Amino acid sequence: MQEYESHIRAAVVNGTGYGGIELVRLLSHHPVFDLVEVTARTEVGTAVTSLFPSLQGLDLSFSASVEQADLVFVALPDQAAVEMVPELLAEGRRVVDLSAAFRLKNQALYTRWYQYEHPAPAILEEAVYGLPEFARDRLPEAHLVACPGCYPTAAVLALAPALRAQLIEPDIIVDAKSGLSGAGRTLSTGTHYSEANEDTSAYGLSGHRHWPEINQELTRLVDSGELNLTFIPHLVPMTRGILSTCYASLRPGVTKEMVQQVYEEAYRTEPFTRLVATAPHTKWTLGSNLCFVYPTVTHEGGRLVVLSVLDNLVKGAAGQAVQCANVMYRLPEDLGLPTKGVYP
Amino acid sequence: MQEYESHIRAAVVNGTGYGGIELVRLLSHHPVFDLVEVTARTEVGTAVTSLFPSLQGLDLSFSASVEQADLVFVALPDQAAVEMVPELLAEGRRVVDLSAAFRLKNQALYTRWYQYEHPAPAILEEAVYGLPEFARDRLPEAHLVACPGCYPTAAVLALAPALRAQLIEPDIIVDAKSGLSGAGRTLSTGTHYSEANEDTSAYGLSGHRHWPEINQELTRLVDSGELNLTFIPHLVPMTRGILSTCYASLRPGVTKEMVQQVYEEAYRTEPFTRLVATAPHTKWTLGSNLCFVYPTVTHEGGRLVVLSVLDNLVKGAAGQAVQCANVMYRLPEDLGLPTKGVYP
Amino acid sequence: MQEYESHIRAAVVNGTGYGGIELVRLLSHHPVFDLVEVTARTEVGTAVTSLFPSLQGLDLSFSASVEQADLVFVALPDQAAVEMVPELLAEGRRVVDLSAAFRLKNQALYTRWYQYEHPAPAILEEAVYGLPEFARDRLPEAHLVACPGCYPTAAVLALAPALRAQLIEPDIIVDAKSGLSGAGRTLSTGTHYSEANEDTSAYGLSGHRHWPEINQELTRLVDSGELNLTFIPHLVPMTRGILSTCYASLRPGVTKEMVQQVYEEAYRTEPFTRLVATAPHTKWTLGSNLCFVYPTVTHEGGRLVVLSVLDNLVKGAAGQAVQCANVMYRLPEDLGLPTKGVYP
Amino acid sequence: MQEYESHIRAAVVNGTGYGGIELVRLLSHHPVFDLVEVTARTEVGTAVTSLFPSLQGLDLSFSASVEQADLVFVALPDQAAVEMVPELLAEGRRVVDLSAAFRLKNQALYTRWYQYEHPAPAILEEAVYGLPEFARDRLPEAHLVACPGCYPTAAVLALAPALRAQLIEPDIIVDAKSGLSGAGRTLSTGTHYSEANEDTSAYGLSGHRHWPEINQELTRLVDSGELNLTFIPHLVPMTRGILSTCYASLRPGVTKEMVQQVYEEAYRTEPFTRLVATAPHTKWTLGSNLCFVYPTVTHEGGRLVVLSVLDNLVKGAAGQAVQCANVMYRLPEDLGLPTKGVYP
Repeated sequence: MQEYESHIRAAVVNGTGYGGIELVRLLSHHPVFDLVEVTARTEVGTAVTSLFPSLQGLDLSFSASVEQADLVFVALPDQAAVEMVPELLAEGRRVVDLSAAFRLKNQALYTRWYQYEHPAPAILEEAVYGLPEFARDRLPEAHLVACPGCYPTAAVLALAPALRAQLIEPDIIVDAKSGLSGAGRTLSTGTHYSEANEDTSAYGLSGHRHWPEINQELTRLVDSGELNLTFIPHLVPMTRGILSTCYASLRPGVTKEMVQQVYEEAYRTEPFTRLVATAPHTKWTLGSNLCFVYPTVTHEGGRLVVLSVLDNLVKGAAGQAVQCANVMYRLPEDLGLPTKGVYP
Repeated sequence: MQEYESHIRAAVVNGTGYGGIELVRLLSHHPVFDLVEVTARTEVGTAVTSLFPSLQGLDLSFSASVEQADLVFVALPDQAAVEMVPELLAEGRRVVDLSAAFRLKNQALYTRWYQYEHPAPAILEEAVYGLPEFARDRLPEAHLVACPGCYPTAAVLALAPALRAQLIEPDIIVDAKSGLSGAGRTLSTGTHYSEANEDTSAYGLSGHRHWPEINQELTRLVDSGELNLTFIPHLVPMTRGILSTCYASLRPGVTKEMVQQVYEEAYRTEPFTRLVATAPHTKWTLGSNLCFVYPTVTHEGGRLVVLSVLDNLVKGAAGQAVQCANVMYRLPEDLGLPTKGVYP
Repeated sequence: MQEYESHIRAAVVNGTGYGGIELVRLLSHHPVFDLVEVTARTEVGTAVTSLFPSLQGLDLSFSASVEQADLVFVALPDQAAVEMVPELLAEGRRVVDLSAAFRLKNQALYTRWYQYEHPAPAILEEAVYGLPEFARDRLPEAHLVACPGCYPTAAVLALAPALRAQLIEPDIIVDAKSGLSGAGRTLSTGTHYSEANEDTSAYGLSGHRHWPEINQELTRLVDSGELNLTFIPHLVPMTRGILSTCYASLRPGVTKEMVQQVYEEAYRTEPFTRLVATAPHTKWTLGSNLCFVYPTVTHEGGRLVVLSVLDNLVKGAAGQAVQCANVMYRLPEDLGLPTKGVYP
Repeated sequence: MQEYESHIRAAVVNGTGYGGIELVRLLSHHPVFDLVEVTARTEVGTAVTSLFPSLQGLDLSFSASVEQADLVFVALPDQAAVEMVPELLAEGRRVVDLSAAFRLKNQALYTRWYQYEHPAPAILEEAVYGLPEFARDRLPEAHLVACPGCYPTAAVLALAPALRAQLIEPDIIVDAKSGLSGAGRTLSTGTHYSEANEDTSAYGLSGHRHWPEINQELTRLVDSGELNLTFIPHLVPMTRGILSTCYASLRPGVTKEMVQQVYEEAYRTEPFTRLVATAPHTKWTLGSNLCFVYPTVTHEGGRLVVLSVLDNLVKGAAGQAVQCANVMYRLPEDLGLPTKGVYP
């Protein structure tokens, strides 16, 4: 264990949602990022631990705004993030944004999928899409990192190696199963315990907001620049965890061995994204920043199936944000991050 | 409510597994089938209610063999069913078998997928595959009904209308999510509570035993007789329920309206299989014999996605068996069957 | 199965809460009570099945008020029930009320525990507290039955035999564990899936509204008329089911055998409340009107512990209401009621 | 963050049970205890991560025996621990035992409650009962720490302050609710997912093995040396977490304020055991070494009710063991331990 001389003042904006709470948990143990501020929209002045006793030992109250922090983690809903992030950048702070507000490069997609005119297209341009596995070299210079959410992280980590190596046809199905915490802390009938418990269902069949993001990130890896992507998210009755089951046809001549080799090369040295030799369980990742990837070829039909699992609030949100920040500040990429799951 | 004059003596073979328990629950209320015997392999002489207090009011003890029943529901594992069913038939009884032992027509598939030489190929021939929606006319004459299991029922009800009408390419993906009761009452690490709870995983990736059965039933609907089927089952942390998400490409010229019309015609008069206008929830089916089907065409890419949900122990096992038996005896198809789910 | 000549028109008031949905499920199968109306406060005109697809086959839309029914099941919140019940009675209808609005005999308790002046003390007087096990003789003449809720039903069925026979000191602890559906369909942070899942907690420690009701019903059984009752409800992560663990000291000279005999006599002929010889599981009761009671005396210390389990939405609400109505109309007490649990 | 010069070699005996896995997770991050060996009884030679992928990054295989470690955490079942612990001590190692094998001081209790003659009564004598809150001064000299399990930890932390201050009558009820992981990783029907899910039940009514341990620890705090203890454990459908609801009558003259003051004094400076002002949730503790205690006096009847919650595998097992070891080696008591829960 090394001791770090220089510390960086960090803030969490909107510490009352599940992403924000998880950021506070992770940052409170971080050896370099000192959590100095946690903002909230309605609980200003309240001790963080009085609302969230699980964060025992944290000696902070919710504040109304960011004042001292140099590094700001924004865990706001999209519409609020799109307003605040430019202000934080203008104040000279570095920002890791966990919303979708700066993830899409094409401004028009916000109009179509999010029903608003994006007010800061220039910032869209410069934001770095924060999947560290594929953005490691651009993060140290980034002022704004648009941290991908749980579904895109799981899908892109599962499919990028095969697509980049042109092993599969650009015709892809992503069938994702998510726990309920991905739906956030805002109340709704669908997330009412008696409705969601002992239930599985698909949703977003007429078009889910994460589709354009997954599509953007995967399309850039296809030679032809054309991709036919179907993405169907499902809710399964558990709090945390995502499993993405991804399907594609192998290109002629591609073998199971070639697939295996491409994935091994892609993830051999990754600190958190690990290739496994058997179908992974979401439970392996609970509370940790791990993502397990398992590519296989079906016995009948020779189709590529890639499974990926992660904890949607860690590798799919707060943990990935801290991982990005570590790279931004040229720290060890796993600094302060849980590398082991809470099991069972 | 009509009163029935003639009654039929019925037995459940192996009433200690989940399929058997559910058969006992359903039959104990049936106005024509009189449950006179419930057999068990290790609990002979024990009162059924002392082992399963939920069956309160049933005045039967487990017996070693079937003696009086004319109609026998066999809820044994495959290997035991394959031995006993021919004996029951030879004794002149009518049999509804819930195992896979007589579902495949091609004997060779048992050698390959089940690792045993099927000893009664002639019976394979005459057994009626008991999906009432598509076998209604052959059931009244049947001596042996091979009742399909939960995965094939969900997959075939979802896809048969589109395949039969040649709306889709014969290249299909079935991504199924099942509760744990589908794995039965036998103990295993994967069904140990602390392992399965708060976990989602895929299994059977190197080939699941239900693949040849789904393949058999769907292939017969394809003009060309050729089908490329990928079937990936998943376990989700709930006791009952299956959701099948089925993917296929539409044939050229096929529209969403054509799809809708074909499914409406297929299921308009079905007592249990219902078309719905929104993504169905497994919870809608708990304890009932209902199956909900929802076909849709994706916004991006024009792919057909069909969702189907059912209770794996009712429409996916015991309820379907009783439904078959009702048709065998020319009774109202829904006689004695729960048509409403326990909600929430 | 007997066929019934005369039918009775029945209505459910407020069919959009969990109690109301369950009433609709049970009544839709009832051979005498014909469900002719289901009211709602905000969904008037909507087909019941479009909101609750689990009720498939029901051909009714939500109506604004009761018009035709002779028998009305009221599943409103207390404050709304207290207004509507007197009107329904004035119109000459018989009413089974599932709220707490007419359960307490002492008007002052409403002021103290429910913070309102009860407007109809005369009706409090005549209402029959509808626990059929102890009110069977008064129900046939009743115009209004105040049907006890899940906690009082579980507690009173557990303790009444011992108290009535003066076997225990009038100093009692009821530690109750309930599934989440008992908290209703109204959204709250405490019933948000990600908060309630994988969590157990106590609540109502400063006084729960069911305390005066349990206290009223148990106190009347104590010779001295004095009872010291502690009632602590807990939420456990499941949808349905209540387990009450009840503690009391045995009076001098009382033996385990005396306890057993008193309970056997109390429940020997009950259709739904069953004495068992081992600790009961809430799962035995799912979807049924069963209540299992298990009295025992601790090895160390000689304390009476009585366990009782039931499905809070059936024997703890809708099922008990139908059971009461059966007795009101001198029908078989179990008519149309599920006597077997959905297991597992 | 301080860096530690001297390291101590540590081993986990039986790293394949839930207590053992959790020890490995915690120790793998510990800045002083270096995990050098993890033993197993049947998986010797297998990489720990191949059996438990959640422990990613750990570079150890299961070994057959302890060779190098100076500090040994024993996570064996009682019968195996009673054999191995004396050997480890004889080899000069310091031992933290997580089984019950050395927790009882009176040898006769093993004969009665565990059905075996304890072979090492002298070691019983010298073993320190490792509840750090009350054993802090004896731990630095201890060779063997008998680390209390989840039920006794929750019960003793809830009741010790009140008993020690003679605030309550020595007539106590502990109603405990535990998640399933407390039942371990060994398969049984009661812990089969479909049986345990959506179920709550009591067990051990004829005498639970933890009764003598709770009784021993609480009795020593009673002036008279006489205690009437009733302890009823329950299983609730979640993986981790215990809630103990403890009941006792206040002694004459004792007020709520006196209770509050006694508990505040008891736990004011504790690193992990925290007094809270509202009913605590088990979820607050997930994955952490926290225990929350909430004493209150009932509105009606003036009874003391104390609630305590903890994660049965951390503060109720592995975390407490590491906490004890920290004190044994005069390290900061919270060194390497998670002080914040994973929420939600």
